[in-house]
Formats: sequence, C-alpha cells, structure tokens
Amino acid sequence: MIQLLNNHKTIRKYKNQEIDEKTLSEILTAGTRASTTGNMQVYSIIVTRDDEMKAKLSPFHFGQSMIKEAPVVLTFCADFYRFNKWCESRNAKPGYDNFLSFMTAAIDALLVAQNVCIAAESKGLGICYLGTTLYTADKIIDTLNLPKGVVPITTVTIGYPDEKQEQIDRLPLEAIIHHETYKNYSSESINKYYSEKEHRSDNIEFVKENSKETLAQVFTDIRYTKKDNITFSKILLEVLKKQGFLNQ
Amino acid sequence: MIQLLNNHKTIRKYKNQEIDEKTLSEILTAGTRASTTGNMQVYSIIVTRDDEMKAKLSPFHFGQSMIKEAPVVLTFCADFYRFNKWCESRNAKPGYDNFLSFMTAAIDALLVAQNVCIAAESKGLGICYLGTTLYTADKIIDTLNLPKGVVPITTVTIGYPDEKQEQIDRLPLEAIIHHETYKNYSSESINKYYSEKEHRSDNIEFVKENSKETLAQVFTDIRYTKKDNITFSKILLEVLKKQGFLNQ
Repeated sequence: MIQLLNNHKTIRKYKNQEIDEKTLSEILTAGTRASTTGNMQVYSIIVTRDDEMKAKLSPFHFGQSMIKEAPVVLTFCADFYRFNKWCESRNAKPGYDNFLSFMTAAIDALLVAQNVCIAAESKGLGICYLGTTLYTADKIIDTLNLPKGVVPITTVTIGYPDEKQEQIDRLPLEAIIHHETYKNYSSESINKYYSEKEHRSDNIEFVKENSKETLAQVFTDIRYTKKDNITFSKILLEVLKKQGFLNQ
Repeated sequence: MIQLLNNHKTIRKYKNQEIDEKTLSEILTAGTRASTTGNMQVYSIIVTRDDEMKAKLSPFHFGQSMIKEAPVVLTFCADFYRFNKWCESRNAKPGYDNFLSFMTAAIDALLVAQNVCIAAESKGLGICYLGTTLYTADKIIDTLNLPKGVVPITTVTIGYPDEKQEQIDRLPLEAIIHHETYKNYSSESINKYYSEKEHRSDNIEFVKENSKETLAQVFTDIRYTKKDNITFSKILLEVLKKQGFLNQ
C-alpha cells in the first residue's frame, strides 16, 4: 500500500483503451470516502469522455496532449451549489457565499481528487494532475456549464499507461519537515536540500536548453512567471466573485 | 488498496501509544510522493509531539480533545518561503506573492496531507482532519512561528485507534458525478439524494437534540453559520495579505 504511494509517477501517455464504467465507478466511489468537512461533501466531479468536450477543454489546458488522449478527464470542483439547494429546500438559510466556504469546498475537492488518483493507480491506471484548471477557471466554468457556487479546482487525466517514466526527484524529507516550530533555512541548508535536484543531469540539461544560469531561473523566468501569476490571480479572484464566494 | 480507502473512518480517540520515528518518517515520505505543481513542493509539514506545544495549539482547534490526546499532530502548510529563499540565492526573482501562488501551494499541501493519511491508515493508524486550521490561521502562524510565505491549511491528528467507529454515510455516487456538463438538480433529485442521510436515525436524533426542524438547519444555524463563516473569511483574507499572497 505504502509502496503504491511511493511508486507514484505522473503518466502523460495513455493506451487507446477505454476505462469501463464499473472500474471508473469503483474509483470514484473510493474517492468519496475521503474526509470532508462536516460530511457536507461540497464538491462535484465532472466526467469527460466525449471527444468533442475534450476538444473544447483542450485549449484551457494549453493544448496539453493528455486531455485529448486520455480516455477519461475528471474536473474536480468546489461545489456549494448542491448543498445550498438542499438547504433552501429545507427551510434553512445557507451562509456559504464567502471565502472560507470556498476554501472548505476546495479542500473537500482536493482530498477526493487524491483518493481517486490513488484508487486509479491501484487499478493499474496512470494519472496526471493539470494545474491549468485554476488559470482558466472562467472558461472551464462556461464549457462545463458550472452554476454559481461551483469553481473547478483541479483536473486529472486517467488512462492505462503507455510509457515507462523515470520517477521524478523529491527534496529530502528533512527539507519539508519541521519539528514543533518552523525552522529557519540558512543558505547552507538551502544549498544542501536543493543540491541533488540541481546536480541531476536532466535538470542541468533543462537549464542549458532554456539558456538560463540556474534551475531556479527556469521557474521564475519561464515556467511560473510573476506576469502569468498575476494575470491568473486576477482571473481567479474574478471567478470567485462571479461564482459567489467573495461576499464577506 | 481500494478497500483501505473504502474503509476510511475518522478516528478521534487514540491509544496512549507513541508512533515511532521510523513509522512516522515512512508515512511522511509516502506523503511527499504526491503530485506537486512543477515539482516545486511548495508545502511544509509541522510535526507536533511536544505536550506543551499541543496545549498551545489546542484552543485554536476549539479545544477538541484529539490535539492533546493524539501522539502526533501534523499541520500541513502552503509554503513558498523555502522556494523563494532558494530562488533568491540562485539569482532568480520569485513572483509568488499572489493569490494564484497561494492556491498552488494549498493544493500541494492538501495532496500531501491525503497521501499521509492513507499511508498512516495502511499502517493501522487512525486519522482526523481538523477544519479549524483555516479559522484560526493567524494564531497558528504565531504559535508555530511560520514566516511570510507560509499559511497553515489543514491539521491532521494521528494515533493508534482506541474506538470502533461506525462508518459515516455518503451521498450516492450519482449525486456528486456529472457526465460531460453540470446537471441541474431538481427538487426531486435533491430529495432523492439527501433522503438516506435525512432518514438515518442518528441524523434524526441530531435534529431533535438541536431543536431544529431539518438537518439542513443544523448546518446553517449551528454548525457552519453565516456569521462564523464571515468572521473566519475576514481573518483568513487578512492572513493571506500578511503572509504575502495578495499582491496582485
């Protein structure tokens, strides 16, 4: 079991093989056993199998091939719409149009997503998370017809693996663990913790390819730039407002 | 494996039994194999074992007994502090002081948290998520000494189970799944999906105990009120500002 978690690799290439309804249903059911605040289950999962829908979603994930090639695309959403509708039909006045409620629902959605991924991997499937969901949440909302109270948080593509991936590196455990209180990171500890990553041949190659001096510059100047982050932050905050989560 | 996920129950009572370092380390390592945006690993885990620290954290989790009684308390944090420090020491200018970056880091932290919980359960441990973390993030930041760039997202208590819990109900799978686009919920479907939950004897008792008419009212009027949500939303947005995530 722990071995399954330890063996996780992101899979971006899938065989041309469907996931049968029974398997998918089993995976999604395992997802719903994840912890959820107050057992409210304030999330929804949009299942995309249709090629036309995949083609529509594809540009919002920057054309990454997984969307069109995976048999199943799952969009995990923070969702207070259903819960609010239940409250309203039960003579109860919901107060979930605020930022805290958005975070509560986002947490719910993410715990379910991770359970679904692990369940999928236990069935021999491969998964890939797409961070693009939050960048283009406005467009995904229109495409998937998400009502007020619903915000897409992350997308996962699932399929039978058609590649043998090397496992990617991680920082040493001590780099991300703190005992009792937050430790300070000295320059020496930063050097130590990031050394393995910086000396991997693939990362050295990556820096060269991108004509940068350091690996960190590949992140700040190319992969996750301040300019993009600000653009996407504005879109996302507009989305929260429009979907009714900023009324405090 | 799927059975482990399907058997999940929240455990709030723990035996007076330590979790040895090797086991904890194995669980946390499995956590770090969770997917992370761009392999940035923008999260930290604060491990609390010390009784004094537990006593300090306890009021911020509204005195729930798990904090003091669990051998290990884990606070999962969105953390760009370490990554920023790395960038700065590598002649790279980080642009991660915005809302999108907060969400990126929160997602990272939550996927790790869920992996850790599953790994713990696979070792015979029981876990409980505490939603209170976001409500009192300002106080937790002070107590755990979290620097700018770090926000606590969720807390998990872990220990060897000392109770036999009944598994809690979930909505039927079809209630939370949508095919291709978001389905509308008619009054009839709301009735159907929430019927089992509303007719459970424990929930009927719960409504009576709280002198309410409906189960939904227990949520809106007592457990998760608009007033509390607004108070906590304001605190949380202040925290994001103070920790440097609202500069867009």
